[in-house]
Amino acid sequence: MTDEVAAAPRKLTVKGRATRARIVAAAAELVFAHGVARTGIDDVRQRAGVSASQLYHYFTDKDDLVRAVIAHQTDGVLDAQQPLLDHLDSFEALERWRDLLVDLQEQRHCQGGCPIGSIAAELADDDPVARADLADGFERWEAPIRAGLARMRERGDLRADTDTDALALALLAALQGGLVLTQTRRSTEPLRTALDAMLAHVRAAAA
Amino acid sequence: MTDEVAAAPRKLTVKGRATRARIVAAAAELVFAHGVARTGIDDVRQRAGVSASQLYHYFTDKDDLVRAVIAHQTDGVLDAQQPLLDHLDSFEALERWRDLLVDLQEQRHCQGGCPIGSIAAELADDDPVARADLADGFERWEAPIRAGLARMRERGDLRADTDTDALALALLAALQGGLVLTQTRRSTEPLRTALDAMLAHVRAAAA
Repeated sequence: MTDEVAAAPRKLTVKGRATRARIVAAAAELVFAHGVARTGIDDVRQRAGVSASQLYHYFTDKDDLVRAVIAHQTDGVLDAQQPLLDHLDSFEALERWRDLLVDLQEQRHCQGGCPIGSIAAELADDDPVARADLADGFERWEAPIRAGLARMRERGDLRADTDTDALALALLAALQGGLVLTQTRRSTEPLRTALDAMLAHVRAAAA
Repeated sequence: MTDEVAAAPRKLTVKGRATRARIVAAAAELVFAHGVARTGIDDVRQRAGVSASQLYHYFTDKDDLVRAVIAHQTDGVLDAQQPLLDHLDSFEALERWRDLLVDLQEQRHCQGGCPIGSIAAELADDDPVARADLADGFERWEAPIRAGLARMRERGDLRADTDTDALALALLAALQGGLVLTQTRRSTEPLRTALDAMLAHVRAAAA
Protein backbone atom coordinates (compact mmCIF):
# COMPACT_ATOMS: atom_id res chain seq x y z
CA MET A 1 0.00 0.00 0.00
CA THR A 2 2.97 2.29 0.29
CA ASP A 3 3.69 2.96 -3.38
CA GLU A 4 0.69 5.14 -4.02
CA VAL A 5 1.25 7.24 -0.94
CA ALA A 6 4.88 7.61 -1.88
CA ALA A 7 3.84 8.86 -5.32
CA ALA A 8 1.72 11.64 -3.80
CA PRO A 9 3.30 15.05 -3.31
CA ARG A 10 5.14 15.19 0.01
CA LYS A 11 3.66 18.50 1.07
CA LEU A 12 0.19 17.06 1.66
CA THR A 13 -1.25 17.27 5.16
CA VAL A 14 -2.80 14.22 6.81
CA LYS A 15 -6.22 15.52 5.76
CA GLY A 16 -4.93 16.21 2.25
CA ARG A 17 -3.61 12.68 1.93
CA ALA A 18 -6.98 11.32 3.07
CA THR A 19 -8.85 13.43 0.51
CA ARG A 20 -6.48 12.38 -2.25
CA ALA A 21 -6.85 8.71 -1.26
CA ARG A 22 -10.67 9.08 -1.28
CA ILE A 23 -10.56 10.48 -4.83
CA VAL A 24 -8.30 7.67 -6.04
CA ALA A 25 -10.49 5.00 -4.40
CA ALA A 26 -13.62 6.47 -5.98
CA ALA A 27 -11.95 6.62 -9.40
CA ALA A 28 -10.67 3.04 -9.04
CA GLU A 29 -14.16 1.74 -8.23
CA LEU A 30 -15.66 3.46 -11.28
CA VAL A 31 -12.83 2.34 -13.57
CA PHE A 32 -13.14 -1.25 -12.31
CA ALA A 33 -16.89 -1.22 -13.00
CA HIS A 34 -17.03 0.69 -16.28
CA GLY A 35 -13.52 1.18 -17.67
CA VAL A 36 -11.39 4.30 -18.03
CA ALA A 37 -13.17 5.86 -21.03
CA ARG A 38 -16.60 5.61 -19.38
CA THR A 39 -15.38 7.15 -16.13
CA GLY A 40 -15.73 10.93 -16.18
CA ILE A 41 -13.92 13.33 -13.86
CA ASP A 42 -17.31 14.59 -12.73
CA ASP A 43 -18.46 11.06 -11.77
CA VAL A 44 -15.31 10.66 -9.69
CA ARG A 45 -15.79 14.07 -8.07
CA GLN A 46 -19.39 13.25 -7.11
CA ARG A 47 -18.58 9.76 -5.80
CA ALA A 48 -15.68 11.08 -3.70
CA GLY A 49 -17.75 14.05 -2.49
CA VAL A 50 -15.19 16.68 -3.48
CA SER A 51 -15.34 19.85 -5.55
CA ALA A 52 -13.69 20.19 -8.95
CA SER A 53 -11.12 22.57 -7.51
CA GLN A 54 -10.27 20.04 -4.79
CA LEU A 55 -9.85 17.29 -7.37
CA TYR A 56 -7.63 19.45 -9.57
CA HIS A 57 -5.59 20.39 -6.53
CA TYR A 58 -4.43 16.77 -6.33
CA PHE A 59 -4.47 15.74 -10.01
CA THR A 60 -3.46 17.86 -12.98
CA ASP A 61 -5.80 15.98 -15.35
CA LYS A 62 -7.56 12.68 -15.96
CA ASP A 63 -4.33 11.00 -17.16
CA ASP A 64 -2.70 11.93 -13.85
CA LEU A 65 -5.63 10.43 -11.96
CA VAL A 66 -5.52 7.27 -14.08
CA ARG A 67 -1.85 6.78 -13.17
CA ALA A 68 -2.81 6.94 -9.50
CA VAL A 69 -5.63 4.46 -10.16
CA ILE A 70 -3.19 1.99 -11.75
CA ALA A 71 -0.89 2.23 -8.70
CA HIS A 72 -3.87 1.87 -6.36
CA GLN A 73 -5.24 -1.17 -8.22
CA THR A 74 -1.82 -2.81 -8.31
CA ASP A 75 -1.47 -2.32 -4.54
CA GLY A 76 -4.98 -3.73 -4.07
CA VAL A 77 -4.34 -6.81 -6.22
CA LEU A 78 -1.12 -7.60 -4.36
CA ASP A 79 -2.62 -6.90 -0.91
CA ALA A 80 -5.57 -9.22 -1.61
CA GLN A 81 -3.11 -12.09 -2.23
CA GLN A 82 -0.99 -11.51 0.84
CA PRO A 83 0.50 -13.12 2.82
CA LEU A 84 0.33 -16.07 0.38
CA LEU A 85 1.87 -14.23 -2.56
CA ASP A 86 5.17 -13.70 -0.75
CA HIS A 87 5.41 -17.38 0.19
CA LEU A 88 4.59 -19.27 -2.99
CA ASP A 89 7.41 -21.71 -2.36
CA SER A 90 5.62 -25.05 -2.00
CA PHE A 91 3.05 -27.00 -3.99
CA GLU A 92 0.69 -26.60 -1.07
CA ALA A 93 1.08 -22.81 -1.06
CA LEU A 94 0.49 -22.69 -4.82
CA GLU A 95 -2.75 -24.66 -4.37
CA ARG A 96 -3.92 -22.35 -1.59
CA TRP A 97 -3.12 -19.35 -3.79
CA ARG A 98 -5.17 -20.93 -6.62
CA ASP A 99 -8.09 -21.40 -4.21
CA LEU A 100 -7.81 -17.78 -3.03
CA LEU A 101 -7.88 -16.47 -6.61
CA VAL A 102 -10.96 -18.55 -7.43
CA ASP A 103 -12.68 -17.50 -4.19
CA LEU A 104 -12.09 -13.82 -5.01
CA GLN A 105 -13.88 -14.29 -8.32
CA GLU A 106 -16.76 -16.11 -6.64
CA GLN A 107 -17.11 -13.21 -4.21
CA ARG A 108 -17.17 -10.76 -7.13
CA HIS A 109 -19.69 -12.88 -9.05
CA CYS A 110 -17.04 -13.15 -11.78
CA GLN A 111 -17.37 -9.45 -12.53
CA GLY A 112 -14.63 -6.93 -13.23
CA GLY A 113 -11.91 -9.28 -14.44
CA CYS A 114 -8.40 -8.37 -13.39
CA PRO A 115 -8.14 -4.80 -12.02
CA ILE A 116 -4.78 -4.42 -13.81
CA GLY A 117 -5.45 -6.53 -16.90
CA SER A 118 -8.72 -4.81 -17.76
CA ILE A 119 -7.04 -1.38 -17.73
CA ALA A 120 -4.19 -2.85 -19.79
CA ALA A 121 -6.60 -4.10 -22.46
CA GLU A 122 -8.11 -0.62 -22.64
CA LEU A 123 -5.03 1.65 -22.46
CA ALA A 124 -1.94 -0.30 -23.53
CA ASP A 125 -2.07 0.87 -27.16
CA ASP A 126 -3.23 4.46 -26.70
CA ASP A 127 -1.33 5.61 -23.61
CA PRO A 128 2.43 4.86 -23.44
CA VAL A 129 2.77 6.19 -19.87
CA ALA A 130 -0.10 4.03 -18.65
CA ARG A 131 1.33 1.05 -20.54
CA ALA A 132 4.67 1.41 -18.73
CA ASP A 133 2.88 1.66 -15.37
CA LEU A 134 0.77 -1.40 -16.17
CA ALA A 135 3.87 -3.36 -17.20
CA ASP A 136 5.42 -2.37 -13.85
CA GLY A 137 2.25 -3.50 -12.10
CA PHE A 138 2.42 -6.92 -13.74
CA GLU A 139 6.12 -7.12 -12.86
CA ARG A 140 5.35 -6.41 -9.18
CA TRP A 141 2.89 -9.33 -9.36
CA GLU A 142 5.18 -11.71 -11.24
CA ALA A 143 8.25 -11.05 -9.06
CA PRO A 144 7.00 -12.84 -5.91
CA ILE A 145 5.69 -15.79 -8.03
CA ARG A 146 9.13 -16.03 -9.65
CA ALA A 147 10.89 -15.78 -6.29
CA GLY A 148 8.75 -18.52 -4.74
CA LEU A 149 9.35 -20.93 -7.62
CA ALA A 150 13.08 -20.15 -7.55
CA ARG A 151 13.17 -21.05 -3.84
CA MET A 152 11.45 -24.37 -4.66
CA ARG A 153 14.16 -25.12 -7.20
CA GLU A 154 16.95 -24.12 -4.80
CA ARG A 155 15.44 -26.31 -2.09
CA GLY A 156 15.27 -29.21 -4.53
CA ASP A 157 11.45 -29.36 -4.81
CA LEU A 158 11.80 -28.59 -8.52
CA ARG A 159 14.44 -30.07 -10.79
CA ALA A 160 17.65 -28.03 -11.03
CA ASP A 161 17.14 -27.38 -14.77
CA THR A 162 13.61 -25.93 -14.29
CA ASP A 163 13.12 -22.52 -15.92
CA THR A 164 11.25 -21.00 -12.99
CA ASP A 165 11.12 -17.57 -14.64
CA ALA A 166 9.20 -19.07 -17.56
CA LEU A 167 6.90 -20.96 -15.17
CA ALA A 168 6.12 -17.76 -13.27
CA LEU A 169 5.31 -15.85 -16.45
CA ALA A 170 3.16 -18.72 -17.74
CA LEU A 171 1.29 -18.86 -14.43
CA LEU A 172 0.53 -15.13 -14.57
CA ALA A 173 -0.63 -15.51 -18.19
CA ALA A 174 -2.90 -18.46 -17.33
CA LEU A 175 -4.33 -16.38 -14.50
CA GLN A 176 -4.92 -13.37 -16.76
CA GLY A 177 -6.55 -15.42 -19.51
CA GLY A 178 -8.59 -17.37 -16.98
CA LEU A 179 -9.91 -14.06 -15.64
CA VAL A 180 -10.89 -12.75 -19.11
CA LEU A 181 -12.83 -15.95 -19.85
CA THR A 182 -14.30 -16.11 -16.34
CA GLN A 183 -15.59 -12.55 -16.68
CA THR A 184 -17.08 -13.30 -20.11
CA ARG A 185 -18.69 -16.62 -19.14
CA ARG A 186 -19.70 -15.56 -15.62
CA SER A 187 -18.26 -18.82 -14.34
CA THR A 188 -15.04 -19.55 -12.47
CA GLU A 189 -14.54 -22.71 -14.56
CA PRO A 190 -12.08 -21.11 -17.01
CA LEU A 191 -9.97 -19.68 -14.16
CA ARG A 192 -9.95 -22.97 -12.24
CA THR A 193 -9.15 -24.98 -15.36
CA ALA A 194 -6.35 -22.66 -16.51
CA LEU A 195 -4.69 -22.51 -13.08
CA ASP A 196 -5.05 -26.26 -12.50
CA ALA A 197 -3.45 -27.00 -15.87
CA MET A 198 -0.54 -24.65 -15.19
CA LEU A 199 -0.04 -25.98 -11.65
CA ALA A 200 0.01 -29.53 -13.07
CA HIS A 201 2.75 -28.29 -15.41
CA VAL A 202 4.69 -26.95 -12.40
CA ARG A 203 4.25 -30.30 -10.62
CA ALA A 204 5.65 -32.04 -13.70
CA ALA A 205 8.93 -30.25 -12.87
CA ALA A 206 9.02 -31.78 -9.37
CA ALA A 207 12.41 -33.27 -8.55
CA MET B 1 -17.02 -15.24 -42.77
CA THR B 2 -20.63 -16.30 -43.28
CA ASP B 3 -22.06 -15.50 -39.83
CA GLU B 4 -21.96 -11.77 -40.16
CA VAL B 5 -23.58 -11.78 -43.61
CA ALA B 6 -26.23 -14.16 -42.33
CA ALA B 7 -26.95 -11.77 -39.45
CA ALA B 8 -27.65 -8.91 -41.87
CA PRO B 9 -31.22 -8.31 -42.98
CA ARG B 10 -32.01 -10.48 -46.01
CA LYS B 11 -33.56 -7.67 -48.01
CA LEU B 12 -30.19 -5.92 -48.63
CA THR B 13 -29.06 -5.58 -52.21
CA VAL B 14 -25.52 -6.56 -53.20
CA LYS B 15 -24.56 -2.90 -52.96
CA GLY B 16 -26.33 -2.60 -49.61
CA ARG B 17 -24.45 -5.57 -48.22
CA ALA B 18 -21.17 -4.05 -49.40
CA THR B 19 -21.97 -0.73 -47.71
CA ARG B 20 -22.97 -2.47 -44.51
CA ALA B 21 -19.78 -4.55 -44.59
CA ARG B 22 -17.70 -1.39 -45.12
CA ILE B 23 -19.28 0.24 -42.06
CA VAL B 24 -18.66 -2.84 -39.91
CA ALA B 25 -15.04 -3.10 -41.08
CA ALA B 26 -14.42 0.60 -40.32
CA ALA B 27 -16.00 0.24 -36.87
CA ALA B 28 -13.98 -2.90 -36.16
CA GLU B 29 -10.71 -1.16 -37.03
CA LEU B 30 -11.48 1.76 -34.73
CA VAL B 31 -12.65 -0.50 -31.89
CA PHE B 32 -9.53 -2.65 -32.24
CA ALA B 33 -7.30 0.44 -32.06
CA HIS B 34 -9.12 2.49 -29.40
CA GLY B 35 -11.82 0.40 -27.74
CA VAL B 36 -15.61 0.65 -27.93
CA ALA B 37 -16.10 3.68 -25.67
CA ARG B 38 -13.57 5.77 -27.61
CA THR B 39 -15.13 4.91 -30.98
CA GLY B 40 -17.85 7.39 -31.93
CA ILE B 41 -20.54 6.77 -34.52
CA ASP B 42 -19.28 9.85 -36.34
CA ASP B 43 -15.70 8.47 -36.51
CA VAL B 44 -17.09 5.27 -38.03
CA ARG B 45 -19.24 7.19 -40.50
CA GLN B 46 -16.26 9.25 -41.67
CA ARG B 47 -13.90 6.28 -41.95
CA ALA B 48 -16.44 4.28 -43.92
CA GLY B 49 -17.32 7.29 -46.09
CA VAL B 50 -21.06 7.06 -45.48
CA SER B 51 -23.69 9.56 -44.32
CA ALA B 52 -25.40 9.32 -40.94
CA SER B 53 -28.66 8.34 -42.61
CA GLN B 54 -26.88 5.52 -44.46
CA LEU B 55 -25.33 4.26 -41.25
CA TYR B 56 -28.65 4.33 -39.40
CA HIS B 57 -30.27 2.53 -42.31
CA TYR B 58 -28.15 -0.49 -41.43
CA PHE B 59 -27.78 -0.14 -37.67
CA THR B 60 -30.42 1.05 -35.20
CA ASP B 61 -27.80 2.39 -32.77
CA LYS B 62 -24.23 1.99 -31.55
CA ASP B 63 -25.06 -1.18 -29.59
CA ASP B 64 -26.39 -2.74 -32.78
CA LEU B 65 -23.17 -1.82 -34.59
CA VAL B 66 -21.06 -3.20 -31.73
CA ARG B 67 -22.84 -6.55 -32.03
CA ALA B 68 -21.91 -6.63 -35.72
CA VAL B 69 -18.31 -5.71 -34.81
CA ILE B 70 -18.11 -8.64 -32.36
CA ALA B 71 -19.35 -11.05 -35.06
CA HIS B 72 -16.93 -9.53 -37.58
CA GLN B 73 -13.95 -9.76 -35.22
CA THR B 74 -14.79 -13.34 -34.28
CA ASP B 75 -14.93 -14.27 -37.98
CA GLY B 76 -11.61 -12.49 -38.51
CA VAL B 77 -9.88 -14.22 -35.59
CA LEU B 78 -11.02 -17.65 -36.76
CA ASP B 79 -10.21 -16.95 -40.44
CA ALA B 80 -6.67 -15.84 -39.56
CA GLN B 81 -6.04 -19.24 -37.92
CA GLN B 82 -7.42 -21.34 -40.76
CA PRO B 83 -6.84 -23.93 -42.08
CA LEU B 84 -4.76 -24.86 -39.01
CA LEU B 85 -7.51 -24.26 -36.46
CA ASP B 86 -9.75 -26.97 -37.91
CA HIS B 87 -6.93 -29.54 -37.87
CA LEU B 88 -5.35 -29.18 -34.42
CA ASP B 89 -5.12 -32.95 -34.08
CA SER B 90 -1.38 -33.57 -33.82
CA PHE B 91 1.48 -32.21 -31.71
CA GLU B 92 3.00 -30.87 -34.91
CA ALA B 93 -0.19 -29.00 -35.83
CA LEU B 94 -0.37 -27.52 -32.32
CA GLU B 95 3.22 -26.28 -32.67
CA ARG B 96 2.49 -24.72 -36.06
CA TRP B 97 -0.61 -23.04 -34.59
CA ARG B 98 1.53 -21.67 -31.75
CA ASP B 99 4.01 -20.26 -34.31
CA LEU B 100 1.17 -18.69 -36.32
CA LEU B 101 -0.26 -16.98 -33.22
CA VAL B 102 3.17 -15.58 -32.28
CA ASP B 103 3.81 -14.44 -35.88
CA LEU B 104 0.49 -12.58 -35.93
CA GLN B 105 1.56 -10.62 -32.86
CA GLU B 106 4.98 -9.88 -34.38
CA GLN B 107 3.23 -8.53 -37.49
CA ARG B 108 0.99 -6.34 -35.30
CA HIS B 109 3.96 -5.13 -33.25
CA CYS B 110 2.19 -6.64 -30.21
CA GLN B 111 -0.57 -4.05 -30.48
CA GLY B 112 -4.30 -4.56 -30.12
CA GLY B 113 -4.32 -7.70 -28.01
CA CYS B 114 -7.06 -10.17 -28.82
CA PRO B 115 -9.81 -8.65 -31.00
CA ILE B 116 -12.42 -10.59 -28.97
CA GLY B 117 -10.75 -10.52 -25.55
CA SER B 118 -10.17 -6.77 -25.56
CA ILE B 119 -13.87 -6.09 -26.25
CA ALA B 120 -14.73 -8.64 -23.55
CA ALA B 121 -12.61 -6.82 -20.97
CA GLU B 122 -14.39 -3.59 -21.84
CA LEU B 123 -18.03 -4.71 -22.21
CA ALA B 124 -18.57 -7.97 -20.32
CA ASP B 125 -19.84 -6.28 -17.16
CA ASP B 126 -21.86 -3.42 -18.63
CA ASP B 127 -23.55 -4.99 -21.66
CA PRO B 128 -25.26 -8.38 -21.18
CA VAL B 129 -26.07 -8.79 -24.89
CA ALA B 130 -22.46 -8.12 -25.89
CA ARG B 131 -21.26 -10.47 -23.12
CA ALA B 132 -23.38 -13.32 -24.54
CA ASP B 133 -22.07 -12.61 -28.06
CA LEU B 134 -18.49 -12.55 -26.77
CA ALA B 135 -19.00 -15.83 -24.90
CA ASP B 136 -20.33 -17.31 -28.17
CA GLY B 137 -17.26 -15.95 -29.98
CA PHE B 138 -14.91 -17.63 -27.51
CA GLU B 139 -16.93 -20.85 -27.85
CA ARG B 140 -16.55 -20.77 -31.64
CA TRP B 141 -12.79 -20.52 -31.04
CA GLU B 142 -12.59 -23.18 -28.35
CA ALA B 143 -14.74 -25.74 -30.23
CA PRO B 144 -12.18 -26.59 -32.95
CA ILE B 145 -9.36 -26.75 -30.35
CA ARG B 146 -11.50 -29.15 -28.30
CA ALA B 147 -12.37 -31.21 -31.38
CA GLY B 148 -8.71 -31.53 -32.43
CA LEU B 149 -7.57 -32.67 -28.98
CA ALA B 150 -10.48 -35.14 -28.79
CA ARG B 151 -9.37 -36.66 -32.10
CA MET B 152 -5.84 -37.02 -30.70
CA ARG B 153 -7.26 -38.93 -27.74
CA GLU B 154 -9.46 -41.13 -29.95
CA ARG B 155 -6.51 -41.91 -32.18
CA GLY B 156 -4.43 -42.83 -29.14
CA ASP B 157 -2.00 -39.89 -29.31
CA LEU B 158 -3.27 -38.77 -25.90
CA ARG B 159 -4.05 -41.09 -23.00
CA ALA B 160 -7.64 -42.35 -22.90
CA ASP B 161 -8.29 -40.64 -19.55
CA THR B 162 -7.18 -37.19 -20.80
CA ASP B 163 -9.72 -34.42 -20.16
CA THR B 164 -9.36 -32.83 -23.59
CA ASP B 165 -12.16 -30.33 -22.89
CA ALA B 166 -10.16 -28.98 -19.94
CA LEU B 167 -6.98 -28.89 -22.04
CA ALA B 168 -8.74 -26.89 -24.77
CA LEU B 169 -10.11 -24.36 -22.30
CA ALA B 170 -6.72 -24.04 -20.59
CA LEU B 171 -5.04 -23.49 -23.97
CA LEU B 172 -7.48 -20.71 -24.87
CA ALA B 173 -6.92 -19.13 -21.44
CA ALA B 174 -3.12 -19.28 -21.81
CA LEU B 175 -3.50 -17.68 -25.23
CA GLN B 176 -5.76 -14.90 -23.89
CA GLY B 177 -3.49 -14.15 -20.94
CA GLY B 178 -0.41 -14.33 -23.13
CA LEU B 179 -1.99 -11.72 -25.41
CA VAL B 180 -2.82 -9.34 -22.54
CA LEU B 181 0.77 -9.50 -21.25
CA THR B 182 2.24 -9.34 -24.77
CA GLN B 183 0.23 -6.19 -25.49
CA THR B 184 1.31 -4.61 -22.21
CA ARG B 185 5.01 -5.52 -22.49
CA ARG B 186 5.22 -5.02 -26.28
CA SER B 187 7.04 -8.32 -26.49
CA THR B 188 5.84 -11.72 -27.70
CA GLU B 189 7.73 -13.41 -24.86
CA PRO B 190 4.66 -13.78 -22.60
CA LEU B 191 2.58 -15.29 -25.41
CA ARG B 192 5.37 -17.69 -26.42
CA THR B 193 6.05 -18.69 -22.83
CA ALA B 194 2.38 -19.24 -21.97
CA LEU B 195 1.65 -21.31 -25.09
CA ASP B 196 4.85 -23.35 -24.75
CA ALA B 197 4.03 -24.17 -21.13
CA MET B 198 0.48 -25.23 -22.00
CA LEU B 199 1.65 -27.28 -25.00
CA ALA B 200 4.19 -29.01 -22.74
CA HIS B 201 1.25 -29.83 -20.46
CA VAL B 202 -0.61 -31.32 -23.46
CA ARG B 203 2.49 -33.37 -24.38
CA ALA B 204 2.59 -34.69 -20.81
CA ALA B 205 -0.73 -36.40 -21.64
CA ALA B 206 0.83 -38.25 -24.60
CA ALA B 207 -0.02 -41.95 -24.61
